[in-house]
Amino acid sequence: MPTDLERAMKTTVLKFYHYAKTDKKSKTLTHEEFKSLLHAELPSFLKSPKNAPSVEQMMSNLDTNNDGVFCFEEYVSLVAGLVMACSECYEKHLENPEKQCKK
Amino acid sequence: MPTDLERAMKTTVLKFYHYAKTDKKSKTLTHEEFKSLLHAELPSFLKSPKNAPSVEQMMSNLDTNNDGVFCFEEYVSLVAGLVMACSECYEKHLENPEKQCKK
Repeated sequence: MPTDLERAMKTTVLKFYHYAKTDKKSKTLTHEEFKSLLHAELPSFLKSPKNAPSVEQMMSNLDTNNDGVFCFEEYVSLVAGLVMACSECYEKHLENPEKQCKK
Repeated sequence: MPTDLERAMKTTVLKFYHYAKTDKKSKTLTHEEFKSLLHAELPSFLKSPKNAPSVEQMMSNLDTNNDGVFCFEEYVSLVAGLVMACSECYEKHLENPEKQCKK
C-alpha cells in the first residue's frame, strides 16, 4: 500500500495530466489549462492577497523556455515553490504557535 | 476545504518536520532521520533496483551545502526529482498502456 507521501506525489503528477489532456497535447498545459488547474486545485494560493494580481506575471515567469505552454517540469517548479513557502509559514508557526501565517 | 493538491503539498511539508523533530534541531534532518523518512515514507523508491545501493550516494548529492544535514529545500529537491521520474513513467504509460514502468 502506498504511503501518504507516495500518494501525495502521485496526486501531484495526476493533477497535471488531468488538466493537460483537455486538448490533444496531453503533456503540456496551455495558459487556459494552467488557469483551470490553479483555480480548481490551488484556490488558497490565488486567494492570498500577495498572489492574486500576479497570476499572469507568475505564468510568464514559470514558462522558462517561453514556448507558451507549461511542461511538467515548469509545473513542478511552481508546486515546489509553494511547498517552500508553506514550510516557511510552518516554521514561523513552530516558533510562534499563536501567530497566524498570512502567506 | 483543502483540495487534493493542497493536501498533497501539506503532507509533503508535514512529513519533513515529523522526522526532523526527532532531535532538538527540528528544521533539518540528520542522516539518520533522513533514512527513517526514506524507509518509512518512500519504500517503493528504495525497492526499485536502480536506487537501493545508492542511498548513501544520493544523500551526499542532496546535501548541496555539505553541512551534514538536510534542510527543507534539499528535501524538496529529492521529492521534486522523484515526482519528475514518476511523470516520465506516467508519460511512457500514456504512450504504451500495456507496458509496465520499472522506475
